[in-house]
Amino acid sequence: MSKKRAVVLLSGGLDSATVMAMARQDGFQAYALSFNYGQRSQAETIAAKRVCDALGAVEHRVMRIDLSQFGGSALTDNQIAVPDAQDAVTGDIPVTYVPARNTVFLSLALAWAEVIEARDIYIGVNAVDYSGYPDCRPEYIAAFERMANLATRAGVEGHPLTIHTPLIDLSKGEIIAVGTALSVPYALTVSCYQANEAGEACGRCDSCEIRRAGFLAAGTEDVTRYVSAGTA
Amino acid sequence: MSKKRAVVLLSGGLDSATVMAMARQDGFQAYALSFNYGQRSQAETIAAKRVCDALGAVEHRVMRIDLSQFGGSALTDNQIAVPDAQDAVTGDIPVTYVPARNTVFLSLALAWAEVIEARDIYIGVNAVDYSGYPDCRPEYIAAFERMANLATRAGVEGHPLTIHTPLIDLSKGEIIAVGTALSVPYALTVSCYQANEAGEACGRCDSCEIRRAGFLAAGTEDVTRYVSAGTA
Repeated sequence: MSKKRAVVLLSGGLDSATVMAMARQDGFQAYALSFNYGQRSQAETIAAKRVCDALGAVEHRVMRIDLSQFGGSALTDNQIAVPDAQDAVTGDIPVTYVPARNTVFLSLALAWAEVIEARDIYIGVNAVDYSGYPDCRPEYIAAFERMANLATRAGVEGHPLTIHTPLIDLSKGEIIAVGTALSVPYALTVSCYQANEAGEACGRCDSCEIRRAGFLAAGTEDVTRYVSAGTA
Repeated sequence: MSKKRAVVLLSGGLDSATVMAMARQDGFQAYALSFNYGQRSQAETIAAKRVCDALGAVEHRVMRIDLSQFGGSALTDNQIAVPDAQDAVTGDIPVTYVPARNTVFLSLALAWAEVIEARDIYIGVNAVDYSGYPDCRPEYIAAFERMANLATRAGVEGHPLTIHTPLIDLSKGEIIAVGTALSVPYALTVSCYQANEAGEACGRCDSCEIRRAGFLAAGTEDVTRYVSAGTA
């Protein structure tokens, strides 16, 4: 019997690379889905491709969706500056929020899952270090799953879909510890909001700050490639 | 005080044109969102633009999403023939079903709504003549709305979003009667699954059949432009 299929949302960052390794560990064939959604950095799409090769995805699709035409986020709108970590207001929703991003990504994962008859979608959302994004919370994921099972053929025909969020309760240090045990090639991954073309991280943004602290907490060497301070 | 804003999903078909007229009647500024999703016919995108001009949309965006790369539907996959109405199995989900289409479209409407601070989305789903699409049922719409209010800034901050489905319980004849009273320019709209470049309908597919019967039931002239039988 052939292995079960899962759609894995893969950004090219540390979290989603870990999720792909966990889906493989769970016995799934991985169908990786990445998006080019008008973000400033293309480095993460290149990273996603390398992670797929390293972890053995069956297919990798990169879908273009131009969310930048809606504007409203520092990650897609060149008029809004990316804040340094110390300036980001931690209790509020940050300006790096992309409107409805996880909803859009999960919807497209759902479309592909339906076509390939996958009943499982993996996504690397995290409620611990989630920087205030509303669509990274367990109650949101549960509501999406419920909606998806009313939306689709599979759901209607009694083959429910499961949204897997294996990182949701883990700290960044715990994620890195799990991934290191599964040989995730973290040197290939890019987390920085403004990585350059070579995939080098700024070392100053919110995402870089969280990642650096994660390696420290995991007691693992930080393999991230940073831009040198003078050239940032 | 400025008028309230609503995102209106507009396909260029009869139903969504009626919905836009109803949103305008409800006092909303209409922000129309159409998709070029790899469907065979481009005629409906042209129709959408004309409907916007006629009914007075504030903005009209046509977003490209290549759902055809996922395949799996007669509307996006050239390997699957569009069935004539008499061949379509009415109790089952038809092959013209596009995977997760309304979920994808509503998700992108949600993203735009968040950016323009609209709290209202209009969509022309219909549970009466819905041809067996699971994502046209009231329970699906309610689940999407609930999910959306957990996903977004507006929901988190206590400004809930409403998904309006004013056609959901109406027959095609009732829809046409409402739209005629609101001066919807039905001659501009295209419902046919395989309309030609000029926007002429085949007169034979499931969608043409339902539309024709609707004009008959409404007791209104069928203003649809059909391809002549010999050239279809």
